[in-house]
Amino acid sequence: MMKTKYLKQTEKYDGTQLRSLYAYLEHQILGDSAVAWRGACDVNFTHMVDGEDLLDKAVISGSDMVHFIIEVFDQNLASGVLLQRLFASIVRDVIDELSPVKNLEIHRSGDDLYWKKKKLSISIATRSPVSTLVHFAINVSNKGTPVATASLEDLKINSKVFAEKALALLQREYETTIEATRKVRPVP
Amino acid sequence: MMKTKYLKQTEKYDGTQLRSLYAYLEHQILGDSAVAWRGACDVNFTHMVDGEDLLDKAVISGSDMVHFIIEVFDQNLASGVLLQRLFASIVRDVIDELSPVKNLEIHRSGDDLYWKKKKLSISIATRSPVSTLVHFAINVSNKGTPVATASLEDLKINSKVFAEKALALLQREYETTIEATRKVRPVP
Amino acid sequence: MMKTKYLKQTEKYDGTQLRSLYAYLEHQILGDSAVAWRGACDVNFTHMVDGEDLLDKAVISGSDMVHFIIEVFDQNLASGVLLQRLFASIVRDVIDELSPVKNLEIHRSGDDLYWKKKKLSISIATRSPVSTLVHFAINVSNKGTPVATASLEDLKINSKVFAEKALALLQREYETTIEATRKVRPVP
Amino acid sequence: MMKTKYLKQTEKYDGTQLRSLYAYLEHQILGDSAVAWRGACDVNFTHMVDGEDLLDKAVISGSDMVHFIIEVFDQNLASGVLLQRLFASIVRDVIDELSPVKNLEIHRSGDDLYWKKKKLSISIATRSPVSTLVHFAINVSNKGTPVATASLEDLKINSKVFAEKALALLQREYETTIEATRKVRPVP
Amino acid sequence: MMKTKYLKQTEKYDGTQLRSLYAYLEHQILGDSAVAWRGACDVNFTHMVDGEDLLDKAVISGSDMVHFIIEVFDQNLASGVLLQRLFASIVRDVIDELSPVKNLEIHRSGDDLYWKKKKLSISIATRSPVSTLVHFAINVSNKGTPVATASLEDLKINSKVFAEKALALLQREYETTIEATRKVRPVP
Amino acid sequence: MMKTKYLKQTEKYDGTQLRSLYAYLEHQILGDSAVAWRGACDVNFTHMVDGEDLLDKAVISGSDMVHFIIEVFDQNLASGVLLQRLFASIVRDVIDELSPVKNLEIHRSGDDLYWKKKKLSISIATRSPVSTLVHFAINVSNKGTPVATASLEDLKINSKVFAEKALALLQREYETTIEATRKVRPVP
Repeated sequence: MMKTKYLKQTEKYDGTQLRSLYAYLEHQILGDSAVAWRGACDVNFTHMVDGEDLLDKAVISGSDMVHFIIEVFDQNLASGVLLQRLFASIVRDVIDELSPVKNLEIHRSGDDLYWKKKKLSISIATRSPVSTLVHFAINVSNKGTPVATASLEDLKINSKVFAEKALALLQREYETTIEATRKVRPVP
Repeated sequence: MMKTKYLKQTEKYDGTQLRSLYAYLEHQILGDSAVAWRGACDVNFTHMVDGEDLLDKAVISGSDMVHFIIEVFDQNLASGVLLQRLFASIVRDVIDELSPVKNLEIHRSGDDLYWKKKKLSISIATRSPVSTLVHFAINVSNKGTPVATASLEDLKINSKVFAEKALALLQREYETTIEATRKVRPVP
Repeated sequence: MMKTKYLKQTEKYDGTQLRSLYAYLEHQILGDSAVAWRGACDVNFTHMVDGEDLLDKAVISGSDMVHFIIEVFDQNLASGVLLQRLFASIVRDVIDELSPVKNLEIHRSGDDLYWKKKKLSISIATRSPVSTLVHFAINVSNKGTPVATASLEDLKINSKVFAEKALALLQREYETTIEATRKVRPVP
Repeated sequence: MMKTKYLKQTEKYDGTQLRSLYAYLEHQILGDSAVAWRGACDVNFTHMVDGEDLLDKAVISGSDMVHFIIEVFDQNLASGVLLQRLFASIVRDVIDELSPVKNLEIHRSGDDLYWKKKKLSISIATRSPVSTLVHFAINVSNKGTPVATASLEDLKINSKVFAEKALALLQREYETTIEATRKVRPVP
Repeated sequence: MMKTKYLKQTEKYDGTQLRSLYAYLEHQILGDSAVAWRGACDVNFTHMVDGEDLLDKAVISGSDMVHFIIEVFDQNLASGVLLQRLFASIVRDVIDELSPVKNLEIHRSGDDLYWKKKKLSISIATRSPVSTLVHFAINVSNKGTPVATASLEDLKINSKVFAEKALALLQREYETTIEATRKVRPVP
Repeated sequence: MMKTKYLKQTEKYDGTQLRSLYAYLEHQILGDSAVAWRGACDVNFTHMVDGEDLLDKAVISGSDMVHFIIEVFDQNLASGVLLQRLFASIVRDVIDELSPVKNLEIHRSGDDLYWKKKKLSISIATRSPVSTLVHFAINVSNKGTPVATASLEDLKINSKVFAEKALALLQREYETTIEATRKVRPVP
C-alpha cells in the first residue's frame, strides 16, 4: 500500500527533504509514500546528489514548483530510477488530460519532461540506508529558473488539481506493480 | 550494456521462450538483452505464468504479433514489472511517432495498451532463478485474438520498423537507467 | 498487509500445498498471506523438503491436524525461519489463552512445540523462486502420528477457534514487523 | 556462529553503542554477536532512532538496566525485527524459568514485555550500512524510568544469571536458525 | 565456517552432483562446504549448465579426475564466480608447492588452469534456488579427455595430498573472506 | 563493462579517496571502474576503515606507492573481498611477468602480498551506501613504511608499466566474471 498526501505547506525545497523517513517524521505518513507540496526550489552543492549536476556546477532553482517526494522500501536503486521515469510518464499523461492546450506533445527523455524543447521538470532518484527515494518537481511558474523552462502556468493547469491527480495515478501504478510481482509463476 | 536484435525467425510464441538465457542459447546474445520477432501466439496453461490469467482460464493467442523478450540480470521482480510498464510507455511513444493516424490517444493501463478501448498488447514480467524476464507482444493483425483487439495494421504501422524503433528506445532507456544508479550520491 | 483465512476445506496435506502462490491460485488470496485448514497429513519423500527428515527417513503423518501455510514476499529464507519460530511462540500463547488446562508449560524448541515432552506440532520453512513459505501444523488428534504426540484434543481446545486466533495474531505480528522496518533511522 | 559475552563494564547506554562493529571495536568480538552489560540508560534525541519515539518526544531512561546489543551480518532489517521479537519471547522464557514468583503471565506485544501491564523492557532494531543491530534492555530497578515499569528486582531475578541465560538461548536460537536455512530443499 | 572433506568414494561425476545440499544430503555435511573425491567424469547435455559449452556442443569427460563441489550460502552468483577463480589461483599455488617439476609456470585464465598450453582443469559456477555452487575438477590422468590436457600425473603430484591441501587452503580463504566483511567500517 | 585509467596525478592517498563515486566525481569515469596513480600514503585513524588496523593502532604510510581504487556496483561486500584477493593474485602475476628477478616466489596471504617475508602491499575492501570499494597499494619505494617492506624498486619494475598491466588484467577478469554469471543455467 502506498500512502499519498498533498501537503498544505509552502516549504522551500532545498534538498534536505530528500532523506529517509521525511514523510513519517515530518508528516506522520508511515511506509511507502508519496507527498507533494507547492514551494520554491533552491538546492546548494552540499545537498545536490546528482553527480552530473555536481560536475556541471548546475543551478537548481525555481520560484514556484510542485514538489513530490516518493519513498519506497525494500527496493533497490534501479527500481527507484525506473519508478521515477514511469512517474515522469504518468505526469505527462496528467498534463495531457488537464491542459486545455491542444496537441501538447510533451516529450519525456529519461526522467525529464520537455514542452517545445523547454524543460518542465527536474528529478533525481537515490538511496538512503533504509529506503529508495525520488524527488520530482515541475515548474508552476518560469520565474527564477536557471534555463529556458515551461511551466504549469504555460499549460494552464491548476497545480493542486495536477498534484492530486498525479499522486492518485502513482499510487495505483505502484500498488498494482507490487501486486504484479505476487501473482506470477517463476520460469526455468 | 543491453544488446538488442530483431530476429528473422517467424517462430510461434508458446510461452517456452520466456525462460532464462533464451537470447543466449538460441541466438548467441549474451547479457542484458531484448530480442523481437514476428510470429503467431498460442500459450497453453502449462506455460502460462500470469496467475490472473490462470484463474481466469484466459486464452492467450493471436495469428500475427510482434514479440519482445527482455532479459535483465541483477534485478528483482519489481524492477522487471517497472521496466515492463516503462516499455509499454515507450511502445506508445513509438506508435505515436510512426502512425499516420492523427490523435491516436493510446491509453496505457499498467502493462496494457489500448486504442479506442481495444487491447493492442499482452505482457508479463517474471523471474527465472538467474534473471528477470519480460514478454511483451503487440498485435500485427486482429485475426485469431480472443477478444476485441487493435493492431499495427489498424494503426498503419510497419511491424519491423516499429520493432526496431522500440528496441532502440528500450536499449537507451535501460542503459541510461543503469547509468543513473551509478552517478548519484546517497542521502541520510 | 497480510491476508489471512480459515478455509472450509478438509484437504489432506501432502506437501504439494507448500508451493508459491498456493493461496492465490487455489484460494484467490493475493500477496502476503496465511491460510489454515483442518485435515490429515501424509508427506512422502518426494515432497519432503526438510533435509534432516530426509536423512532420518522420517514419517510425517497424522489423521487430523490444523495446517497453516504462510507465504511472504520480498523476504529471505532466514526471515522465513525467524517468522516460523515466532509463529510457534504465538501458537503457544494462543494455547495458553484457550486451554482450560492449568499450568500447561508448553515448551518451544526452535520451530517445535512440546507438551509434557510430547510433540504438538511439525513445521518447515523454505523458499520458492518468488517467495518464502512456512508450513506449520498442530495435532488435533493423536491418531496416526508416528511418535508420541500431544494434540488440541488433549488440551481441550477447539481447532477452529484456535486457528482463527493464531491467524489474527500472526497477521498483527507480521504487519507490525514490516511497519517497524519503516519507522526506524539507520545508525552509522 | 554467534559469539556472546556478558561484559563487566557498567557503561551508561546512551544510544551510541548501537552502531556497527561496536562488539568488535570495543570488545574484540568479531562476527555475529550478542553482548550484554548492566548500566544506566539515557538516550537523547540525537541518538534516538525509533521514529515513533521521536514523534512522541519520548524519554528513554532508567537508572539500572541490563542492556543487550545484538549484531548480525548478511540479514535485512525485517530479519532484525523478527529476531528482536523472538529474543523478547526468549527473555520471557528466561524470566519464567528464573523467577520464584508464581504465575507471572509476562505479556509480549511486538518487541515489548509487560508484567501486570507495567513495561519491563525497551528495544529497537535498525540497520547500519554493514549490519543489522538490536538494542534490548530490561529494567533491573524501576528507579529513573519515565513510566510505570516492572523490573528484575520485582521478579526477584539476579541480573547476571538472567543475562547469561538469555545470551545462551539467543545464541542457540540464532545458530539453529541459520542451520535451518541450510538444510531445506526449495519448492516450486 | 566452511566444512571440508576428502571423500572415499570413486563416484563418476556426471553433473548431477552439482545441486543444492549435495554435501548435506549425501554426506551429512551441513552449511558452507567443500568436498572432493577422485573419479571419472562424463557430463551429458541435460546436466551441462555452462551455456558456452552447450553452444559449442562440448564434450566434458575424463577417466580420472579430482572433483571438488563447493557450496556457499547467502552469496550471489558473482561471488561464486570470484570464489571459483580464486580457487583456481589456490590450486595453482598447491601445484607449485607439491610438484617436484621445476619452473612449472601454470597459467590461470579465468577459471581455467593450463600447463604448457594444455588444459589441466574444468570448472563451472552456478546458482541453485538456495545456494551458490562450484564444480572444479583437475585431471589425474590424461586418458579419456576430449582435448590435449595435462594432469597431476604429468606434474608428479599425489591426488589425495593435492586435494586435502587445496581443501584446507580454500577453507582458510573463505573463512577469512567472511571475517574480512565483518571487521570493516563503511565509507560515505 | 569496467573502465580503467592510470591517472597523471601524484595525490597523496589519505583514505578519503576510498568513497563512493570518487572516480566519477573526480575523474569523470562513470560506472564500474578501476583507477590508479602514484603517490605517497598516510591514513589517519579517522579515515582508517579496517577494524583490525584500528584495534592495532596501525600506522598506514609510505612515501611512494601505486594506489588502485576499484569501485563496483550491484555487488555485496563478500564479492568485494573476493575481487580484492583475486586482484592480489593478478598483481602477483604481473610482478612475475615484469620483474627481471628470477624465481621471485611472491606469496599471497588473503589480500596481502609478500616477498621474502617482507610486505609488498596494503589493501582494504569496504562498502559505501551505493557501491563496493577496494583500495590496493603496492610500494614503489621502501622509504617511509612502518614495517619491513619490499617494493617495485626492489623488483626492478616500472610503476607505470606495472599499473597499466594490472588495470588491464583486472578489467578483463571483472568483465569475464560478470559474463560468466550470465551464461550459466541454474541447478535444482
